[in-house]
Amino acid sequence: MAKHLARVAKTANGAGLSRWIRNLSSVASPSAKTMDSTSSIDLEGEYTMPKMLTEVPGPRSRQLFLELSDIQNCGSVNFFGDYKLSKGNYIVDVDGNIILDFFMQIASISLGYNHPALLEVLRNKENAEVFVNRPALGMFPPGDYPQRLRQALLSIAPQEMTQVYTMGCGSCGNEFAFKLIWAWYMSVKRHGNPPTVQELESCINNQAPGSPPLSVLSFKGSMHGRTMAAMNCTHSRWQVKLDNPGLDWPIAKWPELKYPLEEFVAENQAEEEACLATVEELIADHTKSGRNVAAILVEPVQAEGGDHHASPAFFRGLQQITEKYGMAFMVDEVQTGLGATGKLWCHEHWDLPTPPDVVSFGKKMGLGGFFYKDKLRIKEAGRIFNTWVGDPAKVLLLETVVKVIQEQNLIEHCRNTGEVLQEGIKDLEKRFPGQICNARGLATFAAADMKDTETRDGTIRELRNRGIQIGHCGPTSLRFRPSLIAQPKHIHIFLDGLERLLTEQRQ
Amino acid sequence: MAKHLARVAKTANGAGLSRWIRNLSSVASPSAKTMDSTSSIDLEGEYTMPKMLTEVPGPRSRQLFLELSDIQNCGSVNFFGDYKLSKGNYIVDVDGNIILDFFMQIASISLGYNHPALLEVLRNKENAEVFVNRPALGMFPPGDYPQRLRQALLSIAPQEMTQVYTMGCGSCGNEFAFKLIWAWYMSVKRHGNPPTVQELESCINNQAPGSPPLSVLSFKGSMHGRTMAAMNCTHSRWQVKLDNPGLDWPIAKWPELKYPLEEFVAENQAEEEACLATVEELIADHTKSGRNVAAILVEPVQAEGGDHHASPAFFRGLQQITEKYGMAFMVDEVQTGLGATGKLWCHEHWDLPTPPDVVSFGKKMGLGGFFYKDKLRIKEAGRIFNTWVGDPAKVLLLETVVKVIQEQNLIEHCRNTGEVLQEGIKDLEKRFPGQICNARGLATFAAADMKDTETRDGTIRELRNRGIQIGHCGPTSLRFRPSLIAQPKHIHIFLDGLERLLTEQRQ
Repeated sequence: MAKHLARVAKTANGAGLSRWIRNLSSVASPSAKTMDSTSSIDLEGEYTMPKMLTEVPGPRSRQLFLELSDIQNCGSVNFFGDYKLSKGNYIVDVDGNIILDFFMQIASISLGYNHPALLEVLRNKENAEVFVNRPALGMFPPGDYPQRLRQALLSIAPQEMTQVYTMGCGSCGNEFAFKLIWAWYMSVKRHGNPPTVQELESCINNQAPGSPPLSVLSFKGSMHGRTMAAMNCTHSRWQVKLDNPGLDWPIAKWPELKYPLEEFVAENQAEEEACLATVEELIADHTKSGRNVAAILVEPVQAEGGDHHASPAFFRGLQQITEKYGMAFMVDEVQTGLGATGKLWCHEHWDLPTPPDVVSFGKKMGLGGFFYKDKLRIKEAGRIFNTWVGDPAKVLLLETVVKVIQEQNLIEHCRNTGEVLQEGIKDLEKRFPGQICNARGLATFAAADMKDTETRDGTIRELRNRGIQIGHCGPTSLRFRPSLIAQPKHIHIFLDGLERLLTEQRQ
Repeated sequence: MAKHLARVAKTANGAGLSRWIRNLSSVASPSAKTMDSTSSIDLEGEYTMPKMLTEVPGPRSRQLFLELSDIQNCGSVNFFGDYKLSKGNYIVDVDGNIILDFFMQIASISLGYNHPALLEVLRNKENAEVFVNRPALGMFPPGDYPQRLRQALLSIAPQEMTQVYTMGCGSCGNEFAFKLIWAWYMSVKRHGNPPTVQELESCINNQAPGSPPLSVLSFKGSMHGRTMAAMNCTHSRWQVKLDNPGLDWPIAKWPELKYPLEEFVAENQAEEEACLATVEELIADHTKSGRNVAAILVEPVQAEGGDHHASPAFFRGLQQITEKYGMAFMVDEVQTGLGATGKLWCHEHWDLPTPPDVVSFGKKMGLGGFFYKDKLRIKEAGRIFNTWVGDPAKVLLLETVVKVIQEQNLIEHCRNTGEVLQEGIKDLEKRFPGQICNARGLATFAAADMKDTETRDGTIRELRNRGIQIGHCGPTSLRFRPSLIAQPKHIHIFLDGLERLLTEQRQ
């Protein structure tokens, strides 16, 4: 079985280790401000360094693992957390280990653990009713909901996006964004006329013309979620896919760029252009057989797949293709959104002539959903709808997260911290050749590769036993996802720990 | 357009108004206990009756509607709620109207508004961290999570179900249940052997054999959610379906029973047997062409589709078919679960020889998910997984809901209250022939029909203007979904209001 896994992992993620690495100079600001901004970011009572009492998982975690195993297959559990004691950038486990967390619940915690501003939301008695009365937002929203959507969501909307829907999670954000896109695509085909009786009747039984064979184009190595439509756009790991029926939707090759970029400018440009050409071919093929492709869906960085980057020019090329064929350009910012890449939204790095048509979100936002341009607005009521359509409690928390990000300039802070992180990794790359390579990233949204899966997995386990939690992605990548309040002092603890381990591994 | 709607509604919901109506005597307990149990259910500060200051939506709601319309199509919004002032069985809107709520946010509020036990969960400072630190439950669950799952979920699990997964919403519960079922189905086909390399590799690209053309059989008129797989099992309204690609999955006819049951015993039995035969034919057809049907999916009452009932014998027949063909029998209890039908789970009314294989939940549970039998347990880690896999904050609230239900005997209470509700509706049916008919239901999970869509919609609007909120479903049905803490006194206010309106409509 292990053999299968390794083999498939290789197939799914491509053979090459070379990646496009963003030129840091355009992202990082002068670091003069770092000290000012970080001083206010310090959390009272945060631990000063990791402190380990047991290996991880420790005896208490192992006992709880057995208890949870009675109820469900929980084989992916790493350890059990003590979220009362966790604070800021440190997670504490049930065995009392204090661990610097550079994975942050799969990149879904923005302000670290138990941030005082969020605890204050809970302590405010006025807010209790928001948490205990979950309304059906599509029918009976609370009176303050338009204002809350404006403060928590529209205040951080990508440019030109005045429209937003909230959903429960990132997958649902993507699923409902597809529904919006398909509705828009067919509305254009109908020249704005209402649907026909035949369409309204046939769709009830999953039949054309009401249920047309539309699709969304996705990329090899991508990860967009696990519900059916989202999963059909996901091509990262067999665990997401095996035994689920598959849809014949176009899957394009993701560019495999050679590193270092400056040595392979012409080759990399050619690779990206070849991929763009394949995208056009796939669209033509599908259209020819009557299966129109309504959207191109893309992650700004293929995170789960292995932190695969592509150049801004590639994304601009994708957008041009969508414009040429009357498709939607949809960017999945579930993992990249809300600042960790040094911009609020990662696609802001691309200098697009006009923003994407749809941008979906999840994770750090605390709930799922999507922003979209006016032109995609749906005419008929009740088509983007379910019982909850999001959760006012999560929007309330997000409002505070956004306020803290703005007040503390956390995105600029993140660029500065990311500079320290990335220069540190690059330095290790130089000093430990053959052990760590392909340092890459945008601000603190960073990664590096090791020589093989076994070494990578062992490194993550051993780092954790020494009090540093990072993630993995793709077959050989170390995934770094500090919170937005990580500071250079945290980066140095991490770099020191990694350096010590690499030194030992070399011996 | 309105013509289209009416026409499609007819098609989707069947022409017949007759329904199977549950024999109340087997459901209702002696009502001697009613007074004892309801006295403790009274909420301090609950309003004593509706009080209307404006029509609904009032001027403030209309203003907010315009504001929300700037941000999204919110055409399905009825009015804006004031959830601070709402209490128990009464929702207060932003115009200060006090409305008796017998719809309860699409049947998703169990204990009414601002229940003191739930407010206490929020007031307890120890709980704050549960709401501000949302973990990736599949990787780093909190130490108390196994215990919480036991208290909040396994304590109310259907018989023989020791396994549960939580998800964000009902749709995701269904989607992931399908994934579990498909994995189990293929595991049986592999005789427990591990998947082949070819399977592991092909699934990444949505290709067979790793992505086999499996399906789930659903019924005309059903509603299982709006994400793609759930939506493909949904056949209620075009708003859920139009312009979304459809999968060729089997859709069986739902029995149209004649009313009153006691007059049409033979005909109704024949109708159900004919439907069961069609189910077997559909399975045979699909299997013949290599598209195996892995499960039968059914709602105990087709709620959204029009509160369509079927007899226990029909459900037992479906289960027998799944056993005959090695399929899973999955019951979607998203709307029927947690007591409103007079049993914790509606399928407990059916006297099944063994429980269903999978039971999904949502709405009143406060989060989605599904219970399942041991035999469906998945072997490999990470296959039923996403970033959040539920939400400990919702499980914490559910734990309190379950405690209140148990302490206050709310299910028995619900049977007693339901008796008052259903006898009242039947009485109106007798006294207002031609105006209201087909009173039906289980405990307080009840419905009745009116002569056409226009009359039904007008009745709901007018009742609301008089301070009584109910729902609609199907083309002509009034949908009654009081909370579990509704008492006979609330039922009488509702019945009086409806009677007065029916009297006026007759004149």
